[in-house]
Formats: sequence, C-alpha cells, structure tokens
Amino acid sequence: MDINTASADGSPKKIVVLGGGTGTFTVLSGLKYNSVDLSAVVSIADDGGSTGILRDELGVLPPGDIRQCLAALSAGDQVLRDLFNYRFTQGGLDGHNFGNIFLSALEKVTGDSLTAVREANRILNVKGKVIPVSSRAADLYAELEDATVVKGEHAIDKPQNVRAPIRKCFLSPEVPANPEALRAIEEADIIVMGPGDLYTSLIPVLLVQGLAQALAQSRAKRLLVINLTSKNGQTQGYKAGDFCGVVAKHIHPAKIDTVLINSVKPSYDILERYRQAGDHLIEDDLDEEKIKVWRGDLLASCVSSPVPGDKLTRSLLRHDSNKLAAAILSAASVLN
Amino acid sequence: MDINTASADGSPKKIVVLGGGTGTFTVLSGLKYNSVDLSAVVSIADDGGSTGILRDELGVLPPGDIRQCLAALSAGDQVLRDLFNYRFTQGGLDGHNFGNIFLSALEKVTGDSLTAVREANRILNVKGKVIPVSSRAADLYAELEDATVVKGEHAIDKPQNVRAPIRKCFLSPEVPANPEALRAIEEADIIVMGPGDLYTSLIPVLLVQGLAQALAQSRAKRLLVINLTSKNGQTQGYKAGDFCGVVAKHIHPAKIDTVLINSVKPSYDILERYRQAGDHLIEDDLDEEKIKVWRGDLLASCVSSPVPGDKLTRSLLRHDSNKLAAAILSAASVLN
Repeated sequence: MDINTASADGSPKKIVVLGGGTGTFTVLSGLKYNSVDLSAVVSIADDGGSTGILRDELGVLPPGDIRQCLAALSAGDQVLRDLFNYRFTQGGLDGHNFGNIFLSALEKVTGDSLTAVREANRILNVKGKVIPVSSRAADLYAELEDATVVKGEHAIDKPQNVRAPIRKCFLSPEVPANPEALRAIEEADIIVMGPGDLYTSLIPVLLVQGLAQALAQSRAKRLLVINLTSKNGQTQGYKAGDFCGVVAKHIHPAKIDTVLINSVKPSYDILERYRQAGDHLIEDDLDEEKIKVWRGDLLASCVSSPVPGDKLTRSLLRHDSNKLAAAILSAASVLN
Repeated sequence: MDINTASADGSPKKIVVLGGGTGTFTVLSGLKYNSVDLSAVVSIADDGGSTGILRDELGVLPPGDIRQCLAALSAGDQVLRDLFNYRFTQGGLDGHNFGNIFLSALEKVTGDSLTAVREANRILNVKGKVIPVSSRAADLYAELEDATVVKGEHAIDKPQNVRAPIRKCFLSPEVPANPEALRAIEEADIIVMGPGDLYTSLIPVLLVQGLAQALAQSRAKRLLVINLTSKNGQTQGYKAGDFCGVVAKHIHPAKIDTVLINSVKPSYDILERYRQAGDHLIEDDLDEEKIKVWRGDLLASCVSSPVPGDKLTRSLLRHDSNKLAAAILSAASVLN
C-alpha cells in the first residue's frame, strides 16, 4: 500500500467526496484506483432531464447524481456498467438514462430510497460506497443579487438569459441528513469538496441539515479543489478566493484545510474559446499566509472537442482524474 | 441425481421447453428444481403492452416472453429478480415492465438481440438457458374459418368480439431460426410443448423456419402437455385430440411421443365460473391405441381468486409446476 493511502493505524485512508455531477465523477474515477476507503456523499436536489421526470412522476429520490457516482465507482461487470450509462434515444423512453430507470425501479421494489442505493452499490459491485446526502429529495433555490428567486437545480444550472449573480442558495423543504452520510463524514480522514458546479453540485450537499456540524466534528482534512473555469450563471467573475469564501461560509464552523488549484496555463486557443462564451480561467488569488495551497498540474491532456450544438463544451478544459487523485493524497498527507 | 434426470451416459438430461407465456413459466419453474440441463426456446412474436411499445419504438426483439422465461429460471439475486419483474404504475413509464426495459437497453448496448439475451442469462444467473427462437421479430397472423385475417399476437390473444375459429396461423416476415435454438433442440433428450396458449405461445415458435426440421432430426422424446381449459378465441370447443392434431401438423414430419393430461376433475364451482365465461375443461378424448398418454394429477391446489375487472381469471385453474415437472420426467423415462 502506498504510504499516502494509509492512516496512522495502517488501515486504508477513509476519503469522502461531497457533490455529484461531472466534477465528482472525475475525483471518484481517479481515487478509486488507489487503496483507499472511498465514499461519495451525493446531492438529492437534481431536477433536470430524465432525473427530473422520474422524480416528478414516480416520487423517487433524484437518481442522476447517484447514478453518475455509481458509474464512476462500479468495478464489476462491464456490460452492466455500459447498460447503466445507456441513454435511450427513441420512443417514449427517449432521453431516459437506463441507470436512472434502474434506480427508480429499485426504490419502488425495495420501498425505500436508501435501501435502493445500498442495493445498487451491491449489484454494481461498487469500489467504495455511494451515499445519498438525504433520504428525501429537496428543491434547490437561488436568490440572486437583484432579489429574484430561481427555483430548481436545472434552472439555476442552465440560465436562459443573462441574470444577476447568485447571492445565496437554499433547499426547500429543509431535509435532514442521511445518518449514514453523517457517519461517513465523521469517520473520514479526508473530505474532498469540488471540483464541479459550485452552486448546483457542492452547495446542495452542504445545505442539508446536519452536514456542516458533521464536517466540524470530523477530524478529517478538508480539501477544496478549485474549478478550472467559471460557469455561466454561477461563478462568472469568481477568483479562487471567492470559491473559498462561499464554501467556508457553508461549512462554518468547520474550516478548509487546504485548497488545490491547477497551476498550468492552457493554450491560448482554448482560453479564447472560453472567452468567446463569456467564461474565463479561475484566477489564483490565494494567499498562502491565510490558507494552505497545493498548486500543480491538474490538467487533462486529452481535450474533448465541443459537443455539437453546444456553444462551448464543458469538457474542453478538464481535471485529469489521476493527477487530481495524486494531488489529493499528497496534499492530505502533508497535513498529517 | 434422480434416476429420471440422468441420460444414458449419466449426464443430466437435456430438456428443451418450447413456448413463452405463463404456461412455459409454470413448466420452467417446476423443472428448474431438478438436476436437468434446461433450455427454453422462446417466441419472438409478442406485440402486446409494454413489449409491443418497446418493439415498435426501439426496434428490439420483443422482450416479454424472454423476460418471463428468464424470471422463471433466474436463480441469483432476489432483489435483481424482483426488479426484473417490477412493473411501473405511474408517469411515462406506466405499464412498462422493468425487465422489458432492461432487455431493450441491453440489446441497444450490445448491438445485437442474441448477445443481449445471452448477457441477460449471465447477469441474472439463470439456471438453464433462455434462447430466442429467432434473432428477429416477426408478426403473428391468424387466418380464421371465415377467411378474416387477424394481425398480431395480442389481437389474436385478446379478441374484442365473438369471431370465427382459427384456421391457421403464420408469421410475417418468415424468420430463420436462431442456430443456438436449433442446436438445443437437436441435442435435447426431452422436448416439452405446452401448456399455454396454443396459437399465441407454442405455434409462433413452431412456425419459425427450420424448427420443424430440427424437431424431426432430434432424438428427443417429444411431449405435449394439454391445457386444462379452453381459451376464448383460440381453443373453444377443442378436445385433447384437437390440440394433438394442431401440434402434429406443425411439427410434421416429427411426431408427438407422449401426451400429458390432467385427470383430476376440479370442483363444480370452478367449472361453473369457466362455463359462465364461455370456456370449458379440455375433454380427454385421447386414444391410447394411437398415442402414448400420461394421465394423472397435474392440478395446482392453490386456486387464485379472479383478477378484479377480469371476466374470469386465467389463473383460476392452473397446472402445478412441481407435479408437472415430475410428470414430464416420469413420462419421458417410460419412453426410454
């Protein structure tokens, strides 16, 4: 076992990743290849697309974020994994992801959202554990600087028009944390927040009742991975310090122990494409006198081409999952 | 190993059940508890309900009959089995069976109907093997005595009005048999036909190109299990000999070796309910000078109550799966 992956008592380090969405997928995909005890505590506020339809029509826990994390960690059967990620493109099932349908049916069969996810962990032979942050779904709301309130994670995530910056987010109803999520956080050696959509992946987890207290009670090292670029409607104009400020406010009285940020500059071409879409690299304004900072190369060398019809693909600049995993383990071990 | 379940060379007897639907489910459910090498060669002509929608919209092999047989034989995970049988009752997925969606997605992911079913056999840890009779879907047509042609298994199975008796059925397009199905038949020790809907479960299998020849070439004992009662629009007025005649015509030049028929009379009450629905017990007019007959108690003692809204439940009189399995093994061993 790598020295970075063992706790003081020799057992594998317990790492808990908070979030959902593609950023969390990247972190989990990298960390799962290390000998660590890995859990993902996942948002229950998704309401877009297939997830939103299943949530509305069947009253199930929104499956989307859970499905993505299960897919990242599934170690078993390749066919079952492919199946889980399959999205129908025709007929009445058009747009539905098989994994979402799988989780929804599992909740109906087991009669309980948490049992359903535990069974999914087992059936998919997940390397680690995916834990919904609450057994109950909640709606995410964003209050903007102009006092407008936007309802729904999807609406917040995909603004139709130019709009005022987000002042704060809240969940309604206020849902209590899943005790299993709290236990995982309390027993963790390392807690990873980010990368990913700040207001629609990470904050919805932190807003759940009991989460901030559990983070404060945990002896874990709390790491924040800063996003590579801004995101339209969420973090335009943000610098690294702004991310830290928003997260610090949500985890109070807990503190961020180390911030991880990419220090390699992408090519001019790529930056130009972001600039044209109104987005930008997140500037590193972090002050090492105030907070511990890990700087290094976190960039994926494989740059995806833009998705057809997308103004700008979100995956043009991405974190490399293996570099990120190594950075997390290294940053945390320095803290020991 | 039971003496009835071993072939001459000591290996488990190879039993192939032809059909689909609830009758085949009963046979498979009973036989799977014996030490036999069990396969189901299953219809690809279903077009009703969830199956019909998925077949039409996604262009997949009709999953319904395959799903039922997989469910009958699945030995693995109880949760996965329950999931497989789950039917959605709300929203856009209303009426869809999860197992059907599972098979459809699997066909899309693997790109091939036969690979999909093989993978389903594996994932569900099936005790035996479920084999589609063809890799391609076909429509079932019934030509009636008044020369009307009814299109579709579902329309044939559920007549809307009183109609003329069925003169003959055919498939369109004419589809070639799956080589794996032919091989199973050719290598079988016992082939079981029926019970189940004669024209909508058994005949659609026998109509596939190459099936009758394979049955003729096989050294297997060919058993026909006679239904307990008539079925509206299919077999009203039929006696046991009529079933034999129809099947014999479809498997020509192969012959039926033994006919199995229940000899225990149900209670007057139950018969009266069938009579009121226009149905009747199948009369045993079999002549032992012409064909070998196995007679005995095949009746399930647990009688289901009628399904609400159904004029008469189909499951009021049923074969007992264990009695049926024992009868099949006993009838076949007498033939050795």
